[in-house]
Amino acid sequence: MTTARVVLDRCAELDRFSSMRTGLERVHLSTEHAGANAVVARWMEEAGLRTWTDAAGNVCGRREGTEPGLPALLLGSHLDTVPDAGSYDGMLGVVMAVAVAERLRDAALPFALEIVGFSDEEGTRFGKALLGSQALAGTWDEEWWTLRDKNGVTLHQAFLDFGLDPRRIGEAARRPEELVGYLEAHIEQGPYLEAADASLGYVTTIAGARRFAISVLGEARHAGGTPYHRRKDALVGASEIVTTVERMARASECIATVGRLHVRPGAVNVIPGRADLTLDLRAATDTERDAMWTAMHAEMERLCADRGLRLEVVETHTAPAAPCAAWLQRAVVSGIATTGDAAPMGLWSRAGHDAMAVAAVADIGMLFVRCFDGISHHPGEDVREVDVARGLDAFEAAVLEVAATVGVAR
Amino acid sequence: MTTARVVLDRCAELDRFSSMRTGLERVHLSTEHAGANAVVARWMEEAGLRTWTDAAGNVCGRREGTEPGLPALLLGSHLDTVPDAGSYDGMLGVVMAVAVAERLRDAALPFALEIVGFSDEEGTRFGKALLGSQALAGTWDEEWWTLRDKNGVTLHQAFLDFGLDPRRIGEAARRPEELVGYLEAHIEQGPYLEAADASLGYVTTIAGARRFAISVLGEARHAGGTPYHRRKDALVGASEIVTTVERMARASECIATVGRLHVRPGAVNVIPGRADLTLDLRAATDTERDAMWTAMHAEMERLCADRGLRLEVVETHTAPAAPCAAWLQRAVVSGIATTGDAAPMGLWSRAGHDAMAVAAVADIGMLFVRCFDGISHHPGEDVREVDVARGLDAFEAAVLEVAATVGVAR
Repeated sequence: MTTARVVLDRCAELDRFSSMRTGLERVHLSTEHAGANAVVARWMEEAGLRTWTDAAGNVCGRREGTEPGLPALLLGSHLDTVPDAGSYDGMLGVVMAVAVAERLRDAALPFALEIVGFSDEEGTRFGKALLGSQALAGTWDEEWWTLRDKNGVTLHQAFLDFGLDPRRIGEAARRPEELVGYLEAHIEQGPYLEAADASLGYVTTIAGARRFAISVLGEARHAGGTPYHRRKDALVGASEIVTTVERMARASECIATVGRLHVRPGAVNVIPGRADLTLDLRAATDTERDAMWTAMHAEMERLCADRGLRLEVVETHTAPAAPCAAWLQRAVVSGIATTGDAAPMGLWSRAGHDAMAVAAVADIGMLFVRCFDGISHHPGEDVREVDVARGLDAFEAAVLEVAATVGVAR
Repeated sequence: MTTARVVLDRCAELDRFSSMRTGLERVHLSTEHAGANAVVARWMEEAGLRTWTDAAGNVCGRREGTEPGLPALLLGSHLDTVPDAGSYDGMLGVVMAVAVAERLRDAALPFALEIVGFSDEEGTRFGKALLGSQALAGTWDEEWWTLRDKNGVTLHQAFLDFGLDPRRIGEAARRPEELVGYLEAHIEQGPYLEAADASLGYVTTIAGARRFAISVLGEARHAGGTPYHRRKDALVGASEIVTTVERMARASECIATVGRLHVRPGAVNVIPGRADLTLDLRAATDTERDAMWTAMHAEMERLCADRGLRLEVVETHTAPAAPCAAWLQRAVVSGIATTGDAAPMGLWSRAGHDAMAVAAVADIGMLFVRCFDGISHHPGEDVREVDVARGLDAFEAAVLEVAATVGVAR
């Protein structure tokens, strides 16, 4: 039986597929992505799954149920990372899914069991998140082909370089009738389970993020010679936006983050003429989130107008909040109960997940595993072996609960 | 006679030595630097000067005075630029000096006439300004050899790559007894001459800048999962520093600018764990400037402490204010008077100049030429032909005034 120790070792093994010399970064359609896919496929095969890489670069595995060709219960998460990432965000869910498949090798299931390691969830390389899971959900947008990475490579070219045929992207799409549902295990990426002294929790809904690329346009001038009344300092304007975004979000139930800020021309003795920043905005409901954006945008316009700066905003990503299906929430709760926690904690996920995209084509459910100090997207990301062990038991029991439910329904 | 038109054409000709595809950037010890040096040397030779590249990469030319081996009056400015620069900051002074040498080809001068095109004034490549003029002034610091550019190349290696021998840097140093003085023409880089409707002005003193590399250290975490009370967002702290710096400087007579800000890890969905920024601080007197830094630093410490952030500060550059010598101020005033402005405007230079470094080894004087709308360090940098024409007349007359003064003194 695959133990929590093996799961943690496998997560560590995936660390070596990194483009950073020290630290972890593995982005969509990179050499490191290919390496991670190959290793995960090998683990799937060892668990008795037939494997393939789909038309979007997702690594997939399938084992038939009690008869061939049944709809599949899909288990998965992603294998790509942010820059300087931790070892568990995404990977833990894929590796746990493989372990559960191995444990259930001899179970007679009324559905096929499929596992997917998504190629892109973070959007690190092309600035567009959930590319892998959106391909699977059939919500691919042809406009994405012209997205470029920081070296100017288009997504289209990256597909070709990875050995994928962009014209065949539609083949990655799954139809609703092919799927029983989707279950994803993931580290919590927040401090709530730890604060409640709980190993596991179930997700009620996944907050939808909206992301914006914001440009503040001023005028580059000499830092010495230009008096303040003649300045149009894009960085001072951008800094006011950063502090205002935090102040407004803190005063609400929203979460808003400026993760990138790039200044041009970027010389010690030149007043910045341009600042480009990103905004990531989340809330428990789309209504709260959208109202907050409207208020923030108005405030940004006012700040820029006051300084003679120009504001440009492009929305780069929108995802509606994705509620977990009640029956899959129940299956996860029932799974957690087998580990001794009869009334597990329900959380709304502030972070986005592949499950949000998959929700377009299947019911979704999620199992959260406690992580150390709420740290994620950071090398300090950590999980306890005991929590992973409980997570495996709960995940396996949840799959069996789904089997029981589907069996009754059939 | 070299006309203002020729001067402007030559400035435009130098634009092609640029590392940017569109726009101008020419940094220390680059291929573009070598190209600009070669063209300027050719112009010097056409003006009857003997030329050489000194041990610091400065392009130099010399024509003897009424007898060989006399001390030299040095004319010059720099040939390097900021990123996305204008065509005149530095280059105009070099090209005007060459034009003046050409005009004075047949003058019997009681000093040698030397011109220098400094290799580095802006500090764009190695973050350390005035490298060319400090080598000439004999104030080179051996610690600079380990400075690195953004690609990790050390200054030492860049010297070798440019064909210079770092061990011979001392040979670029001039002794006080070799120099009569130093005159530099430069665009004003500020709006004061334009506001006074004057073509030319003389400089009374050059403000000394202090520059700092400031790091704000927080903790990178997931943008969705981390509640505000658990965040140590380095960018929010850095943004408070940027706005505070501006507020404090505006309330004083100081000029303070944050020109660079770099965020790590720099992903749309990761709370910034680190922000590195630069501060450039200037005032008419060193006392005012230093008092402002003390106050700003204390405020930065307080802002960071409030957010659980760590502040690290390294001073990267210090230059004391450099007063222009009274007798060279008079020579410049007298030169400007020949163009019809009997009582020209005296300004303190908010911008730093090569003259500040040269002041360590010779008396200095500066002639300012009006520029369009005070714009500098920007592609929109512009000068009027009529102002350059007056500038050439004034510069030539100032050199002759120095000749008269030196002649009397001898």
